Amino acid sequence: MTKARALVLERQHELALRDIDLPLDVGPGMVRIAIHTVGVCGSDVHYYTHGRIGPFVVNAPMVLGHEAAGTVTAVGEGVTHLSVGDRVCMEPGIPDPNSRASRLGMYNVDPAVQFWATPPVHGVLTAEVVHPANYTFKLPDNVSFAEGAMVEPFAVGMQAAAKAKIVPGDTALVLGAGPIGTMVALAALAGGCARVIVADLAQPKLDISAQYQGVIPVNIREKNLVEEVGHLTDGWGVDVVFECSGSPQAWKTIMDLPRPGGAIVVVGLPVEPTTIDIAGLSVKELRIESVFRYAHQYDRAIALIASGKVDLKPLISETFAFEDSKAAFDRAVEARPSDVKLQIRVAG
Amino acid sequence: MTKARALVLERQHELALRDIDLPLDVGPGMVRIAIHTVGVCGSDVHYYTHGRIGPFVVNAPMVLGHEAAGTVTAVGEGVTHLSVGDRVCMEPGIPDPNSRASRLGMYNVDPAVQFWATPPVHGVLTAEVVHPANYTFKLPDNVSFAEGAMVEPFAVGMQAAAKAKIVPGDTALVLGAGPIGTMVALAALAGGCARVIVADLAQPKLDISAQYQGVIPVNIREKNLVEEVGHLTDGWGVDVVFECSGSPQAWKTIMDLPRPGGAIVVVGLPVEPTTIDIAGLSVKELRIESVFRYAHQYDRAIALIASGKVDLKPLISETFAFEDSKAAFDRAVEARPSDVKLQIRVAG
Amino acid sequence: MTKARALVLERQHELALRDIDLPLDVGPGMVRIAIHTVGVCGSDVHYYTHGRIGPFVVNAPMVLGHEAAGTVTAVGEGVTHLSVGDRVCMEPGIPDPNSRASRLGMYNVDPAVQFWATPPVHGVLTAEVVHPANYTFKLPDNVSFAEGAMVEPFAVGMQAAAKAKIVPGDTALVLGAGPIGTMVALAALAGGCARVIVADLAQPKLDISAQYQGVIPVNIREKNLVEEVGHLTDGWGVDVVFECSGSPQAWKTIMDLPRPGGAIVVVGLPVEPTTIDIAGLSVKELRIESVFRYAHQYDRAIALIASGKVDLKPLISETFAFEDSKAAFDRAVEARPSDVKLQIRVAG
Amino acid sequence: MTKARALVLERQHELALRDIDLPLDVGPGMVRIAIHTVGVCGSDVHYYTHGRIGPFVVNAPMVLGHEAAGTVTAVGEGVTHLSVGDRVCMEPGIPDPNSRASRLGMYNVDPAVQFWATPPVHGVLTAEVVHPANYTFKLPDNVSFAEGAMVEPFAVGMQAAAKAKIVPGDTALVLGAGPIGTMVALAALAGGCARVIVADLAQPKLDISAQYQGVIPVNIREKNLVEEVGHLTDGWGVDVVFECSGSPQAWKTIMDLPRPGGAIVVVGLPVEPTTIDIAGLSVKELRIESVFRYAHQYDRAIALIASGKVDLKPLISETFAFEDSKAAFDRAVEARPSDVKLQIRVAG
Repeated sequence: MTKARALVLERQHELALRDIDLPLDVGPGMVRIAIHTVGVCGSDVHYYTHGRIGPFVVNAPMVLGHEAAGTVTAVGEGVTHLSVGDRVCMEPGIPDPNSRASRLGMYNVDPAVQFWATPPVHGVLTAEVVHPANYTFKLPDNVSFAEGAMVEPFAVGMQAAAKAKIVPGDTALVLGAGPIGTMVALAALAGGCARVIVADLAQPKLDISAQYQGVIPVNIREKNLVEEVGHLTDGWGVDVVFECSGSPQAWKTIMDLPRPGGAIVVVGLPVEPTTIDIAGLSVKELRIESVFRYAHQYDRAIALIASGKVDLKPLISETFAFEDSKAAFDRAVEARPSDVKLQIRVAG
Repeated sequence: MTKARALVLERQHELALRDIDLPLDVGPGMVRIAIHTVGVCGSDVHYYTHGRIGPFVVNAPMVLGHEAAGTVTAVGEGVTHLSVGDRVCMEPGIPDPNSRASRLGMYNVDPAVQFWATPPVHGVLTAEVVHPANYTFKLPDNVSFAEGAMVEPFAVGMQAAAKAKIVPGDTALVLGAGPIGTMVALAALAGGCARVIVADLAQPKLDISAQYQGVIPVNIREKNLVEEVGHLTDGWGVDVVFECSGSPQAWKTIMDLPRPGGAIVVVGLPVEPTTIDIAGLSVKELRIESVFRYAHQYDRAIALIASGKVDLKPLISETFAFEDSKAAFDRAVEARPSDVKLQIRVAG
Repeated sequence: MTKARALVLERQHELALRDIDLPLDVGPGMVRIAIHTVGVCGSDVHYYTHGRIGPFVVNAPMVLGHEAAGTVTAVGEGVTHLSVGDRVCMEPGIPDPNSRASRLGMYNVDPAVQFWATPPVHGVLTAEVVHPANYTFKLPDNVSFAEGAMVEPFAVGMQAAAKAKIVPGDTALVLGAGPIGTMVALAALAGGCARVIVADLAQPKLDISAQYQGVIPVNIREKNLVEEVGHLTDGWGVDVVFECSGSPQAWKTIMDLPRPGGAIVVVGLPVEPTTIDIAGLSVKELRIESVFRYAHQYDRAIALIASGKVDLKPLISETFAFEDSKAAFDRAVEARPSDVKLQIRVAG
Repeated sequence: MTKARALVLERQHELALRDIDLPLDVGPGMVRIAIHTVGVCGSDVHYYTHGRIGPFVVNAPMVLGHEAAGTVTAVGEGVTHLSVGDRVCMEPGIPDPNSRASRLGMYNVDPAVQFWATPPVHGVLTAEVVHPANYTFKLPDNVSFAEGAMVEPFAVGMQAAAKAKIVPGDTALVLGAGPIGTMVALAALAGGCARVIVADLAQPKLDISAQYQGVIPVNIREKNLVEEVGHLTDGWGVDVVFECSGSPQAWKTIMDLPRPGGAIVVVGLPVEPTTIDIAGLSVKELRIESVFRYAHQYDRAIALIASGKVDLKPLISETFAFEDSKAAFDRAVEARPSDVKLQIRVAG
């Protein structure tokens, strides 16, 4: 164990930048990374404001942060694809490669996954971290650390796009233009959709999506979404609905939105029990897919960013110095509609 | 129009065997069929007892019956694959081949489908019917008329099995051992499952399924289903759950039944709004598929019956003469747990 | 029949702009279209230079041209989605909606398809044509007639991209940078690929592809393709190879190009018998997909052009007046490496 | 290392039952198994007769045998799903769980796989072996050791059936009724096919397949296969062709056998270069899948045997005592058409 300065969630509502013991030995198959940039995620903020997410409770001081990029500073035995000095980003979940789910290629649904900043596992708002090389990905020269730290939330969008089984030229609809909805919209466009309709109540959020070619914003305070979708699709419906609002309300009319034989991809998780219209689902023979984090998406996400097909830079709303981490979290708590992603620059 | 004797639902609760005008001209692409056997379906019975199913209301006298087999008696212009004397069964739904859904190969979700014994379209509990040759299927010599009239409900099971995307050797679970659940169980076994667990409260229904090799009956009055599934699958869960009970109750624990990455196929339609556990769905990245009737299943269903892989004969509980049609319906209203399928022999 | 001026292939090597009898009655479900622009396709040119393509022999004068856009001038009974004055493009193949293949949604493999400018069916290098409304597609205001006439060749690329089952972020390789290879590359990029490597011997062709973001040109006169693919994919291989060269030579090393579990999509058809390395295919468990024209791609292709994701305008190398049609064909025979698509403006 | 008696291939043509040093330490995650029954595989025989298979050359004495079942005699640290005394069968290939292919769920195409009886890795025709618990599968009480030793070749059939993506009720065609063709036919039937046509020149092989319900044998010395397939499928073609003959001859007419949009699954590997008809492939938009061993098939194969859906016992042609191992191999070299599988009972 090594003492290191980190942003520690002591308990609900209490953050401290202080020294804490962290394991920094580089075992076989591992690399050590100097952290450069870390994004602030809704789940980090939720642990700060609520002290828990579902069954995961903050019972002991925990370092926050799991959207990270940095530079390799040490390489363990047997690691061949990374070298000291490589600029990288990291998957925050570490599965057991021998679990049944991992062997089937679905390591994200392995219940044994250790995930950064999910109690009791520490996150990475600190100077250095040790991580499996297999879950550490080299950044091309034209991808910045800031973009590297965006790969994590974008990977959720990529998982949703992959689950949708987009056919080139599809029309999609994203319900909810928050950070995740925006990531999903960009992944759906890069992943083959011709058009992505994005629906929300908050105009500032829609304005951010609307910067991207192919996005059609719909303010559902002003327009009836079912009618608007009918209008935009000649009455046929969209090929895919991505439900990113997490609102039970969204489920009330959702079956009117997809075309016959279309799909609904669930990304947002309602806290309350949700009533769904099973008859409406069946009469169109719809398919529902769901998403839990992501698997095998980092290299794909990086490739899309590097090739210029996906530009995440406009989504970085503000960058804070490490010393101002608490301010970053307090700004995140404000939940300004025009904020998509806040980041903390740990080094550099 | 030709006067013909038929089983007519005059209005809710009132059946009559009487003459009625039916169209019997054989246009191009059509065939005329002398009806031999017709199965009594739950939807026929529901129109009898309730006078409606959802938006479909019996406002005028309607001939009942849509599960039928018979013999070709006339062949229209341009029909090449059928001849007079062929023994056949018929799909009861007639889509518009030029609709968008039909052109995409999903004619079952074409809203323009005309479906036998769905108001205002007459059914086939009568001597003869005219039908498109493309939706009329030749029965091999070793498939009886009684089996031919079972193809319709079995096709629902086939559609569910196709939607499940069974991988050979899968383990499935069928919730609800009524007629449709039983059809689904047989289709899932024929369609590649190694084992099908069938769960119900009614032992007589389970006893019928349990005749088939590969079926594992579970009486959920006696056993905890989640525990039993865990026990039978080493704690992993089943690959596919077919929800055939139509009970909102079934949805309460359904997410505990499939394996990570598994599927739920919705066959039974709850009348009441149904609450589902979206977080439970997502944490395992489950997929939900739904079924609306069937498309392109008749030839497949007949092939499985003809090859001996599927034996529907034990499911024919009793056969009534045409003159006793009303008795058949009254028996169906009783809903004896040991009755799977009642049939009416119109001719022969 | 109506006399109309048209570009007629009298026999091999002999073109004439002259009057010919063409059917212009607008039956139910049909529309009449005033042709605006027609692209010159390799198959048109091949009938001109060889008088046949495989079993299809020009035994009688035939109007050429099948890549067309124009304006609706009359609408038949029952047509609801088109009106006089609509700007449209048309699928050149007319299937039988009642064929087995069409009912399954694969109308392109219906052997009964009537295809423009495929003997004995006339093409559309003439003033007007009558066509089924279901295979006539409205052009959005921001899609020109010239782009509309490009939808046909682009639809081949779309079919290839759909068959590939691209996962968002895939890396593809296109062998052959001719017109079809270029269409495939654009469809693959729009359809979800992060990067498309395009390989050819001819630098002018590569230069055209290289204008597009995401394309990586490889001149195989200068570089070893297997090594270059290894270098670009960290030794893993590409997710999809699109074989568009039609050269048996390409098949000699093709198995070294995809990653384990990857795919090869065959677009180019070698004239000679082709030897393939089945052991090489199997050791990586590769999948081969093939493409025959396209089905259900026009609306998707138009959507991608309209949304700005695909820009086909740089591929239109030169436009000829209708009176200069023969010159257009003679230029096409030259096969200049810098020519992608030549078009003929029939009207306007 | 422990001295143990084993069937050793000293070099091409030379077998010896003698003591050899084998590693029997049970590390973490490993189990030790007392071998009961081992099947003789074509590859074992090929090393015996030719001393090599492609790049794999017998340069040092090697124990033969890789189709094995036995009883657990020791359990390493961390193994929870197996206990001493469990009856088991084993996957002969040991992949690296951290390789890219393994992490994607395709461990069979991991080039680092260590495979029993593939030089320089020893096989298991000996008393005991140590193996990873994750690739060791418990046999249900109603599955014998002899059946357990059949799981390996049957898993190849399962992999082929999985790759085919059988839709319930499909008709398949197996080219070649040798041991692998027979396994594929049984897997295809259990995996959802209604009928499997099996084609071969050798009547004794066909007679063995023909015992199974759903198999339609076709002797291609007596009948034209293309005509026969046309006859059996009303001119449409089969949904899937499994090429198991490994004969370049089979590829000459193979494109005439599937239906439009159908599939060819390559199981047999021709030694010579093979010419294929790419135009014939494309005009029907066929798909080719290939198979390399298997992944994730053992539990599925065992489930189908245990449930009674697949009966492999009739395929065990003769069982030899361990002392008679050489006789078993010499009998295998004879390649009697009526022999499907020869087994060696090592213990019990």
